[in-house]
Amino acid sequence: MAGSSPAAGSPPEAAGPVTLDALRRAAADLEGIAVKTPLIPAPTLEQQLGVPVQLKGEHLQPVGAFKIRGAYTAISRLPERALAAGVITYSSGNHGQAVAYGARALGTRAVVVMPDHAPEVKILGVQRHGGEVRFGGPTSATRQRAAEAMAANEGFTVIPPFDHPDVILGQATCGLEILDEVPDVDTILVPVGGGGLLAGLCVAVTALGRAVRVIGVEPSGAPKLTEALNAGGPVTLERTESIADGLLPLAIGRLTFPIIQRTIHATIRVPDEDIPGAMEVLFHDCGIEAEPSGAVTTAALLSGTIRPAGPTVAVVSGGNVDRELFTRLVHS
Amino acid sequence: MAGSSPAAGSPPEAAGPVTLDALRRAAADLEGIAVKTPLIPAPTLEQQLGVPVQLKGEHLQPVGAFKIRGAYTAISRLPERALAAGVITYSSGNHGQAVAYGARALGTRAVVVMPDHAPEVKILGVQRHGGEVRFGGPTSATRQRAAEAMAANEGFTVIPPFDHPDVILGQATCGLEILDEVPDVDTILVPVGGGGLLAGLCVAVTALGRAVRVIGVEPSGAPKLTEALNAGGPVTLERTESIADGLLPLAIGRLTFPIIQRTIHATIRVPDEDIPGAMEVLFHDCGIEAEPSGAVTTAALLSGTIRPAGPTVAVVSGGNVDRELFTRLVHS
Repeated sequence: MAGSSPAAGSPPEAAGPVTLDALRRAAADLEGIAVKTPLIPAPTLEQQLGVPVQLKGEHLQPVGAFKIRGAYTAISRLPERALAAGVITYSSGNHGQAVAYGARALGTRAVVVMPDHAPEVKILGVQRHGGEVRFGGPTSATRQRAAEAMAANEGFTVIPPFDHPDVILGQATCGLEILDEVPDVDTILVPVGGGGLLAGLCVAVTALGRAVRVIGVEPSGAPKLTEALNAGGPVTLERTESIADGLLPLAIGRLTFPIIQRTIHATIRVPDEDIPGAMEVLFHDCGIEAEPSGAVTTAALLSGTIRPAGPTVAVVSGGNVDRELFTRLVHS
Repeated sequence: MAGSSPAAGSPPEAAGPVTLDALRRAAADLEGIAVKTPLIPAPTLEQQLGVPVQLKGEHLQPVGAFKIRGAYTAISRLPERALAAGVITYSSGNHGQAVAYGARALGTRAVVVMPDHAPEVKILGVQRHGGEVRFGGPTSATRQRAAEAMAANEGFTVIPPFDHPDVILGQATCGLEILDEVPDVDTILVPVGGGGLLAGLCVAVTALGRAVRVIGVEPSGAPKLTEALNAGGPVTLERTESIADGLLPLAIGRLTFPIIQRTIHATIRVPDEDIPGAMEVLFHDCGIEAEPSGAVTTAALLSGTIRPAGPTVAVVSGGNVDRELFTRLVHS
C-alpha cells in the first residue's frame, strides 16, 4: 500500500457532468451542517454600478468559509470503512478547519498536516473542531507528500482542498443557492484559489442551464487561472504572493480547470492595494468582516473593470482574518 | 477592609452630566480597542416602515458585543496601583469576557466569578482572553457578594456590568457614533438589561443636545425598566425569564435609571416568540448573526408597535450565540 494515495469517495476519473438531481441531493445532505448563507445587500456597489448587487455571505458558515460545503460532502460520501478509518488533509487554512469540523460531525477522526512553524491560531483553529495537528515540512508539496504517506500507512483517506469531484460538488451548492434565490442574476463573481468554488459555481450554472456571466477573480500576484486559460491547461507558477492568503495555490486544479474553462466568461486580476479598500466597504457599508481572499470580488467590482448589465452577486468566500491584521487593514 | 466593595475609577456618587468633551475623550481612548461599528442597511425593515433603517452592528466588536466599550473605559481609568492589582467582575456573559479582554489590553489581571455549573463555552470564553475563572455560587447575588469579598481580600477592583459611571460613559460612545453618523436620526432603539447601554445612549443624546426619540426594548419576561418607570424608581422583580439571556437582571441600575428616566421616550416589551423571527430577518436580509438579546430591537420594529417618523437606528447589541441554539432558532 505504501506510496498509494487513497482519495475521497468517487475517484477523480469519475468526474462527469453533474445532474441537477445530484446537486439538489448534495444540498439536502448539507442541511444542518452548512448554512444556506444570506445574500446581503450592497448599497455602495449598487450605487456605483447602477444594478442590484448582493453579497453571498459565506463568512457566515460554521468555520467561517465556504469550505465546509466541499469538505463535508466529500467525507460524508466515503464508504463506511474508509469513513471509520478517518481522514487527512494538508491545508492549514479554512479547508483544514472544515475537514476537522466535517469529520467531527460525521463521528470520525481528522488529521491536518501543517507547516512546522504554523501560527498557534491556525493550530488552535483545527484543534477547536477536534482535529489532530501534525507537522509536515515547510512547503505545500512536502506537506501533501507527508499527508499521502500517512494516509497510505495508517489507512486515512485524503480529502484534497479542491481537486476532487465531491469537493467540487459540495462547493456547487453555493452556486445552487445563488441561482435559486436570484433567478434573474446576470453576473456572478467568485474568488479563485485552486478553483474549487469557481468550478462548483460553473457546475451549478450548467446543471440549471442558466445563462449567467461567471467571472473569476484572482490576486495579481497569483494569476494561475488567467495563465491556465491563456495556455489552454494548468500552469504551475514559480511563486504566488498576495495578502489574499486563501488564493495562493501555484496552479489551478487539473479537475477544476476543464469545468471552469467550459463556462467562465472572464477573469479579473486584483492588485493587493485594492483589497483593504474593499474590506472597508464590506465592513462599513455591509457589516461584513471579510478575510482578504473574501474581499477580492468586491475589489473587482469597485475597480470599475466590469460593468454588469443586470443583477450581480459577488461571493464573499470567508471571514477568517486575524483581528490584528483586520485592524491594520480596516480603519474603524 | 473586609466587607467594603472597591469600585472602578470615579465613585458612583460622582455621576453628573457628561460633557461632550468628556464623551469625545472616552471615544478617543477606545481607538484601537473597540471598533467604530458599522451602520448596516436593513432593506426589509425600511420597506415595512417606509423610513431609512440602519442597524448598529455591535456584534462586530471584539468579544462580540458592545460591552468592551464600558469595561475597557472603566478599567483604563483606574488609578495606577488599582490597575496593577487587577480587576474582578461577576458577570458570566459578555461583560465577563469584555473585562478579561480589556484587562489584558491594559496589561493587568482579570478574575471573573461564575456560576458553579457554568457551561464550558462560557468558561473558555473568559480564559481565551486571559481571564481567570472562579466559582461563586448559584445566584447572581451570591456571585456579586463573592466577587466583592475577593476584591476586599485580594485588592481587586470590581468592574460592575452596568451600574458605574465609567461603564456608562464607555457605552455612551456607541450613541456618539450613531449621532455623528446619522445627523438626522429620528428614533433609536436600544435593548435593556441593566440599562448601561441605554443610559449611555441617553448620555450621548444629552451631551450633543439632540432631539431624538430613544426607545428601550426589553423582553416581556424581564420588564424591569417598564416597572421602574411606572414606579418612579428601580423595582426588583421576583424573577425574569427570556431567551434574551443578556437582558435578565432583576432590576434596572440605580445609576442608570435616573439617566434613562430623564431622556427616554418609550419602552417596548417584546415576547420571546417574536425573537427568532427577528434573528432570521437579521441573518437572511442583513447577514447579521445576532444573539437573542441583540435581536429584540429588530423584533420591536417588526411588530409594528411603533411608527418612526424619520431615519431609525436599531442597536444590535451583540452576536454571542451558541451555534446549536442559533441553528435551532434560525432556519437557514
